[in-house]
Amino acid sequence: MKAEIIAVGSELLTPDRMDTNSLFLTEELNKLGIEVVRKTIVGDDRDLLREAFRDALNRVPLIVSSGGLGPTEDDLTRETVADLLGRKLKPNDAILDAIKARFRSFGREMPDTNVRQSMVPEGAEPLNNPRGTAPGLWIENGEHMIALLPGPPRELEPMFHEEVLPRVARRATGVRMFHRELRVTGLGESLVDSRIQPVYKRYKDVNTTVLASPGEVQVHLRMWTEDAALAKKTFAEIEQGFEIALTDRIFSRDGSTLPEVVASMLTMNNATIAAAESCTGGLLAERLTSIAGSSTYFLGGVVCYSNEMKTAWADVPKELIEAKGAVSAEVAIALAEGIRRRVGSTLGVGITGIAGPGGGSEEKPVGLVHLALASASGVKERAARFPGDREMVRLQASQAALDMVRMHFLYNGVAKRG
Amino acid sequence: MKAEIIAVGSELLTPDRMDTNSLFLTEELNKLGIEVVRKTIVGDDRDLLREAFRDALNRVPLIVSSGGLGPTEDDLTRETVADLLGRKLKPNDAILDAIKARFRSFGREMPDTNVRQSMVPEGAEPLNNPRGTAPGLWIENGEHMIALLPGPPRELEPMFHEEVLPRVARRATGVRMFHRELRVTGLGESLVDSRIQPVYKRYKDVNTTVLASPGEVQVHLRMWTEDAALAKKTFAEIEQGFEIALTDRIFSRDGSTLPEVVASMLTMNNATIAAAESCTGGLLAERLTSIAGSSTYFLGGVVCYSNEMKTAWADVPKELIEAKGAVSAEVAIALAEGIRRRVGSTLGVGITGIAGPGGGSEEKPVGLVHLALASASGVKERAARFPGDREMVRLQASQAALDMVRMHFLYNGVAKRG
Repeated sequence: MKAEIIAVGSELLTPDRMDTNSLFLTEELNKLGIEVVRKTIVGDDRDLLREAFRDALNRVPLIVSSGGLGPTEDDLTRETVADLLGRKLKPNDAILDAIKARFRSFGREMPDTNVRQSMVPEGAEPLNNPRGTAPGLWIENGEHMIALLPGPPRELEPMFHEEVLPRVARRATGVRMFHRELRVTGLGESLVDSRIQPVYKRYKDVNTTVLASPGEVQVHLRMWTEDAALAKKTFAEIEQGFEIALTDRIFSRDGSTLPEVVASMLTMNNATIAAAESCTGGLLAERLTSIAGSSTYFLGGVVCYSNEMKTAWADVPKELIEAKGAVSAEVAIALAEGIRRRVGSTLGVGITGIAGPGGGSEEKPVGLVHLALASASGVKERAARFPGDREMVRLQASQAALDMVRMHFLYNGVAKRG
Repeated sequence: MKAEIIAVGSELLTPDRMDTNSLFLTEELNKLGIEVVRKTIVGDDRDLLREAFRDALNRVPLIVSSGGLGPTEDDLTRETVADLLGRKLKPNDAILDAIKARFRSFGREMPDTNVRQSMVPEGAEPLNNPRGTAPGLWIENGEHMIALLPGPPRELEPMFHEEVLPRVARRATGVRMFHRELRVTGLGESLVDSRIQPVYKRYKDVNTTVLASPGEVQVHLRMWTEDAALAKKTFAEIEQGFEIALTDRIFSRDGSTLPEVVASMLTMNNATIAAAESCTGGLLAERLTSIAGSSTYFLGGVVCYSNEMKTAWADVPKELIEAKGAVSAEVAIALAEGIRRRVGSTLGVGITGIAGPGGGSEEKPVGLVHLALASASGVKERAARFPGDREMVRLQASQAALDMVRMHFLYNGVAKRG
């Protein structure tokens, strides 16, 4: 089966915004064996929108759109598609009540403009949206299926999984796309690629993509087949080859993120953690606590930007800072040991570095970061020089700190295979 | 003048890659007063490609495409467009020699496949590409202009500047696009829209877009005119109307972010800040320190997830937590006052709440957050219930905390008009 994606919104035709939903939608449609043959991005204009849907209906049986379901005058998807298909829009009381209830739960009155979000084309099925006001719409029209989804990814993605996927799956054929994602940290993109190429080159039926983002490399394996067992066997063989090539640098085989992997290791080991951060400014704490239930392992963290706070909160001796400088292996170690002792946690992390753009010198350039991990068995320290801008340096530093925790449990604790 | 962008390449229809050239192209075309009314992403398929160009020619006078000019069998843009316009492809010796010379300069022989890159449709002008093998093509066809550009950004961007821009500028009219962005916090999308609608509805020549992201609403004004003074005057009038409708909820008139606005207020007032965060887990500290030079105003922060750490780091009385609960106005106030006193900063922020998904109760539901700001003139406190998932709640809470700082300076300090 073939599909087209239509992204609606004038903001997507400005230099500020682009449609990113289509990556998610493509992945999900591919999994069902559905190929995306075109993406169209069109503004909030009735005629152009109508033309985009009309043309797509002439080409493919499935159209998935995002955006244009909001409450304002320029949200036109609902009206335009109803009109194109010759269906009347009718008010749906259940949806209206749900929107009103949603506003009430935040202690607000529903503005009148939101009424239009409760309008449903004749014969369409509303798609439940617990994360926003606008329901999606599912319309079957002869051989055609049309899913109208809201623009915000946090609304669109669960709606696709819960409401669209089961409806599309009913009609999808036997060939599906199987996908495996491995995540690697501590090695650059070209190094990862050159190490694993001898393995994946042997599998002509598998499409391998190597993608880099700050602090990690993702390796995607994709195989189109009817045969789930074949896909499973092939992926297992390739993974075995990748493991020999990349050893413990693979941290995830199921799409989980590094904070998720570390959180699960902390939990499995009944361990707790505390952090004393300088250049990362709270990013490590933020990432460790981004996971639901983090209060079981994360006891606390300090962002000791000033030297005084390094001493006050993590007992870093003033003389040590003076002798070695705030950005030094010794201060990273003192931060890790100090915060662990103060908080009474199983592990303590210390980070100090130069995120830039200012503050660098020849001896201590922008991007230099010292990291330390203290535990009952002592302290480990490493230094790295990260490329990129302030945001990149901070992200990579937090990633390296998380990886030190992962390595600790990999070799000193209970750890499930990454 | 109106334009469409066509991005060619099957890899742009996979979950891993997306067309990013169009952001650059849109920005450049807008500067010339050319509006991009549609973007199409299409694979390396002769029929679909032909249809995409044919339809675009029926709609707009200018088409800019990227990709599909390479040497391989699946690079079809050149052939397809020539065929669509009924023009023969002819070999161009100068281009062929240049391609051969380029290969020689890397010590290689030109493979035969590259010959097709030297083919030029009758009447087309080749566009020089010093950074790659494939030249671009410029084709004028009656009232239509078509620019076929290579896919790699490092080839496309200079080619646009050097070769396409002068050709388009000749035909572009005096009309340009003027843009103004206002950012609002503390009001939802529909409320903002319903308040400002009476203002912007009066200006038929101005396109107004209201966009929501967690914790803020962006209002974009766009006006296409030859008359810069008129645009300036019109935007000033609209802004004045918006100010009456939104009062101090507008925090940015130049695209700057809330952390940037707060950072500049802290700097201008020679003020320093410290934060004691619970549910935001370091996100406020991370955002305050995401800005270069933040060490001048950010002294330090604590992430006191456990009750013990609230007491140890911000002197929140144990009895207060027991009596009122960790998530309470009283504890938020104690956190703000405690961290300010401990760090010796001008301002102290306290945040405590329930980010979810667990931990909520009927009395204290998920999304409930208490915020406090302590200063020399006392302490301000507010409670809010934020919708959405854990990430949304945390982001909105950090945004609300930043806004409390902004309001403090707006009414108690030196503040430039937002």
